[in-house]
Amino acid sequence: MATVNVGMLGYGFMGKAHSNAFRQVRHFFPGKLAPRMRVICGTHHQKLQQAALQYGWEETETDWRKVVERKDIDIIDICTPNHLHAEQAIAAAAAGKHIICEKPLANSASEARQVVQAVECAGVKHMVMFNYRRVPAIAYARQFVEAGRLGRIHRYRGAYLQDWIVDPALPLSWRMQKQYAGSGALGDIGSHAVDLALYLNGGIESVAGLLTTFIQERQTESGPGEVTVDDDAAFLARFRNGSVGVFEASRFATGRRNANTFEIHGRDGSLRFDLERLNELEWYDRTGSPEDRGFRTIRVLEKTHPYAGAWWPVGHILGWEHTFVHAVHDFLTCLETGAMPAPGFQDGLAVQVVLEAVQESARSGAWRTI
Amino acid sequence: MATVNVGMLGYGFMGKAHSNAFRQVRHFFPGKLAPRMRVICGTHHQKLQQAALQYGWEETETDWRKVVERKDIDIIDICTPNHLHAEQAIAAAAAGKHIICEKPLANSASEARQVVQAVECAGVKHMVMFNYRRVPAIAYARQFVEAGRLGRIHRYRGAYLQDWIVDPALPLSWRMQKQYAGSGALGDIGSHAVDLALYLNGGIESVAGLLTTFIQERQTESGPGEVTVDDDAAFLARFRNGSVGVFEASRFATGRRNANTFEIHGRDGSLRFDLERLNELEWYDRTGSPEDRGFRTIRVLEKTHPYAGAWWPVGHILGWEHTFVHAVHDFLTCLETGAMPAPGFQDGLAVQVVLEAVQESARSGAWRTI
Amino acid sequence: MATVNVGMLGYGFMGKAHSNAFRQVRHFFPGKLAPRMRVICGTHHQKLQQAALQYGWEETETDWRKVVERKDIDIIDICTPNHLHAEQAIAAAAAGKHIICEKPLANSASEARQVVQAVECAGVKHMVMFNYRRVPAIAYARQFVEAGRLGRIHRYRGAYLQDWIVDPALPLSWRMQKQYAGSGALGDIGSHAVDLALYLNGGIESVAGLLTTFIQERQTESGPGEVTVDDDAAFLARFRNGSVGVFEASRFATGRRNANTFEIHGRDGSLRFDLERLNELEWYDRTGSPEDRGFRTIRVLEKTHPYAGAWWPVGHILGWEHTFVHAVHDFLTCLETGAMPAPGFQDGLAVQVVLEAVQESARSGAWRTI
Amino acid sequence: MATVNVGMLGYGFMGKAHSNAFRQVRHFFPGKLAPRMRVICGTHHQKLQQAALQYGWEETETDWRKVVERKDIDIIDICTPNHLHAEQAIAAAAAGKHIICEKPLANSASEARQVVQAVECAGVKHMVMFNYRRVPAIAYARQFVEAGRLGRIHRYRGAYLQDWIVDPALPLSWRMQKQYAGSGALGDIGSHAVDLALYLNGGIESVAGLLTTFIQERQTESGPGEVTVDDDAAFLARFRNGSVGVFEASRFATGRRNANTFEIHGRDGSLRFDLERLNELEWYDRTGSPEDRGFRTIRVLEKTHPYAGAWWPVGHILGWEHTFVHAVHDFLTCLETGAMPAPGFQDGLAVQVVLEAVQESARSGAWRTI
Repeated sequence: MATVNVGMLGYGFMGKAHSNAFRQVRHFFPGKLAPRMRVICGTHHQKLQQAALQYGWEETETDWRKVVERKDIDIIDICTPNHLHAEQAIAAAAAGKHIICEKPLANSASEARQVVQAVECAGVKHMVMFNYRRVPAIAYARQFVEAGRLGRIHRYRGAYLQDWIVDPALPLSWRMQKQYAGSGALGDIGSHAVDLALYLNGGIESVAGLLTTFIQERQTESGPGEVTVDDDAAFLARFRNGSVGVFEASRFATGRRNANTFEIHGRDGSLRFDLERLNELEWYDRTGSPEDRGFRTIRVLEKTHPYAGAWWPVGHILGWEHTFVHAVHDFLTCLETGAMPAPGFQDGLAVQVVLEAVQESARSGAWRTI
Repeated sequence: MATVNVGMLGYGFMGKAHSNAFRQVRHFFPGKLAPRMRVICGTHHQKLQQAALQYGWEETETDWRKVVERKDIDIIDICTPNHLHAEQAIAAAAAGKHIICEKPLANSASEARQVVQAVECAGVKHMVMFNYRRVPAIAYARQFVEAGRLGRIHRYRGAYLQDWIVDPALPLSWRMQKQYAGSGALGDIGSHAVDLALYLNGGIESVAGLLTTFIQERQTESGPGEVTVDDDAAFLARFRNGSVGVFEASRFATGRRNANTFEIHGRDGSLRFDLERLNELEWYDRTGSPEDRGFRTIRVLEKTHPYAGAWWPVGHILGWEHTFVHAVHDFLTCLETGAMPAPGFQDGLAVQVVLEAVQESARSGAWRTI
Repeated sequence: MATVNVGMLGYGFMGKAHSNAFRQVRHFFPGKLAPRMRVICGTHHQKLQQAALQYGWEETETDWRKVVERKDIDIIDICTPNHLHAEQAIAAAAAGKHIICEKPLANSASEARQVVQAVECAGVKHMVMFNYRRVPAIAYARQFVEAGRLGRIHRYRGAYLQDWIVDPALPLSWRMQKQYAGSGALGDIGSHAVDLALYLNGGIESVAGLLTTFIQERQTESGPGEVTVDDDAAFLARFRNGSVGVFEASRFATGRRNANTFEIHGRDGSLRFDLERLNELEWYDRTGSPEDRGFRTIRVLEKTHPYAGAWWPVGHILGWEHTFVHAVHDFLTCLETGAMPAPGFQDGLAVQVVLEAVQESARSGAWRTI
Repeated sequence: MATVNVGMLGYGFMGKAHSNAFRQVRHFFPGKLAPRMRVICGTHHQKLQQAALQYGWEETETDWRKVVERKDIDIIDICTPNHLHAEQAIAAAAAGKHIICEKPLANSASEARQVVQAVECAGVKHMVMFNYRRVPAIAYARQFVEAGRLGRIHRYRGAYLQDWIVDPALPLSWRMQKQYAGSGALGDIGSHAVDLALYLNGGIESVAGLLTTFIQERQTESGPGEVTVDDDAAFLARFRNGSVGVFEASRFATGRRNANTFEIHGRDGSLRFDLERLNELEWYDRTGSPEDRGFRTIRVLEKTHPYAGAWWPVGHILGWEHTFVHAVHDFLTCLETGAMPAPGFQDGLAVQVVLEAVQESARSGAWRTI
């Protein structure tokens, strides 16, 4: 196995998940290229040391530009806070590195466009980490749709529901402030809902959105501070294929801890999914005898289901972090074969464009064409 | 028991359900007034005879005005096609009859206003048959909300999903033609979703709507005919209490045969309901220990739950038609006590006003304030 | 429609359910014979009057023998306490009446045999009220099995679980005393589980049982009294077809209010049912593509499902009491056609034989062949 | 961190799962001792090389005795076929190694007793890999029971249901032959069900069992061969605490791919679990208001739930293999603290004793006291 050297920028929650993927990938998915976890980069020295040790990186570095410029690094994996993504990705592209970038690709569509231009110009491989495409159930759902098994699609419901800030006593954090986070529920989790919709149901033509901040002021160490992002986003959509979309992203959906859900209604059948039961895909087949129809729960853990066969014997359930292992495996395979990874940065841009249209519609109170 | 004489206009699906309610009510819910099923009215003589016999009515009549004018009739129950509701209700009010009217109260808000004026002027009792308020689980949900057990409400999701016309080969029927049906999914089932929202979460301030007709032409006996109503309706809403609403009504939600659902997210808890499992109410209590939280399935069949005690010992499930029995019982109780039934015609009007705002928003592409 | 006159013995919970069935049957299921509710019989005069009025009976009678001997009565419906069933059924047969009898047919197998002999000798129609055979989902399950759609059956799980006596403070009632009730959970609800097993999976060859009384003493008005029946019954079984059975009947299954459940595992598929969701049947089809398999929830409410079409349009759920309406309809149809109703008294006897074998096995600690 | 050197015997399915645990444990669960994966042992040279490479072991060895005798090895992890467990464990104990042993500890109770004696005599640490005790939901269930939150336990239902050999065309394998496998469903998966019962509900007093082989002959490469183990096991049990047990283990439960389930009914509440949704625990609380009771689905993914906090933010689901990571973490912690791991080999023996009693009861047709 040839080695491919990885440099990671960032060491937070996502850094932990991506590190796990690099460590685990070749223990389950054989391939020609073996990733070597060379260097992890962050600003806080002590935490960085700790992260390197715990996650399994060989070296540390506090200046991300040095990592990007290292000759011995092949892949840059960007797991930093959102507002750094664009700049770092552009620099990595300029240095000729292949790039994995956590979503969002950038904090605005125009910035995202620059990133896309940079990688296209550099001719490097790139992937934006919409990891949920690699849930086996979702990859299988895509096969359903592509094979035309649902017939013409009429309706798409996408809702990513969480409830972690419903408590008014929760203090203000950077995720509730526009200057750091870009947006709130819409960009953070709504972006996943939009990416899945584009993946499963194609392009969106126009949207009408509603953004709401239920709690406008929260405590900080130095007194009350303003919440400057949305707590909750909802929007209607028309898809290019003529179907209708209803979308929700919320941090106030009490009881829904991490429910990334969709439901697709087609002429010949329907599919339902909920990340809280990520090993399951519900299918309603309208083509059989009416007496025998009903939503069935497919446990997407058979040998021949996407990704599932690499892990354990049939029926042993997989967890959330496995999606990153699948993504890294596919990325490495593209390096081996020369194919372009998906979702690429263009897909990250496409999501950003929809999100901006939702924000504009919410501001103007009118539908917005994309 | 004193007797109260009932005349029913119409003998279709709803006539069957209302008739059952009149027959059954005193066998389960004792009261001072006993309904006597005196006369049923319809235009098709043979079917009318058949209906009278099967449903248990003493007499038949083909001219509804004669029924309304009969001195010996106390209650007029209107189960005719939608476009007749207003005229018949106004006539019944003028004749001093108490009135039960199937929803919609009228085919437009202005017509509905006239009906409300008529009953207010006549001083009769009136009820619009939003029967789902009488599902024990929903009546219990209302108690939850009223007692403040959910805390401040942030989000309301209402979706009434069906799939009975997803087949393109299904011929054109009156329910798909505006001149007869008024509207499509929006008025037919969306009206139920709106009524429940008003019942459980109070007034709606503004809406943004999307109406879609997926199949614009269907077969008739004399060739292709145009579908002139919506197949699918979706809208966003702002409630007066500051919460956000997402609504759907569809006849194209494949696999959802009759799913009248809601989900309410409050600061202190959430509730979920699906008519396809109407004996169950799901509750998430956010006030207890975090380790012990989870959606629980309350089977609303205990003696002390609304309506449930009158039927069978604990745990024996009820069906759809029971909701009408409950409604008729409550209506009769109001006749006994002099109280005004709920939902009254004002509630029917309130729903109509929301539906019209949705239609106007769908036409204009902009939010509509109510 | 010709009239057939009914006399009912008993007016308790079951009397209420059977009365409802006689009142409702012809409003939903047309037929040539219309039941007329002539006389209801009970010992407590005042309660009897009340029951007659509420349930809709024309006359009352306190001496059951007089009812049985009335020339103008065609059907005797026995809803009295268990220990009276045999004697009353034998008398009714002797008087040439058709008989519906609540389960159990008798309090012992030998008594049940006498009842069977009596009706066979008299040549009357007879039905034991194992009403759950008339749940549409269960009737449909039977069609599955009969058509061989599950292939060879390997396993049958039957469990009727309740929890109404788990509270030690609940006082002693006649249902916990052998002299009145015959047995406890085994006979009361285990009998239903056994009947469904015989209906769906054929004869039982041998059993090994365990009967348990968790709380042996409960309060009465005059001090502590002994519980002399089982609180809980469990048994293993071998079926004639080579399959294995696991059975449970319990009044101590906390949280299971009224869960009459079964699960059948066959070579080609499986079925699951729970009375708490009686409109649903879960089917796993093992014959399709492995990637697409999963338990599906069939909502047994389509026009062509057993019984369902007579009620409401597709998707409107039915309740518990509907099973009795179906049973009475089938009984009346047999009177019209001359066919023998099922389950007949022989079926009641067959259940009794299994229950006695379980009791004997529990006593002896060894398997018991039937 | 000090290093502790591990030698693993075996490289099959379980070897893969245990290897993953050693690789992953310190990346998520910090501790003083770091496992070093020194040597993996197996008989088939080429497969062994492959396994070492894929699973991450430094060296290979084909003679297990050499591994056991290596001075530089601290822990022996036994993942070989069942019939080798006892001999290897005894040798490892004699060499003073700490031992992790896959279940079953031995193929008979008497052998298991020798293994227990060996480790007790040697004074080494030992753990039998009943990994399901480390499912967070099950560890949390144990806390429920220990804290007395269910009150007196009345009933325990344990069923481990699979369906992987329901197809008669499946060829004979070593798992269906007594000389290699010891027993069939009973020992393979029934052992897990028994261990969980002992863990959650204490000792078993007596059992009555039924073992069945549905398909007695299967194809081998050289013609038909006899199946000499059970396809299906069921047994009744009385627990020491007075509760009743119903157990099932089957490889013929069509549609149940890997359903390790239990349900515990106590006076004050109930718990339910299914491995197919291993992140969830269902709890019914009987102590609250009757109107508000219902089974709730606790997602055992909160920071304060057992093990969950070490992985990802709240609500991100875990997979099957995580249970082994938890077990290895706990084992290493015991090496650090000097405490004895649980379940120890005594627990492995206790399970074996119950399984043998079930087998004897199945042979004799009578209850068997333990």
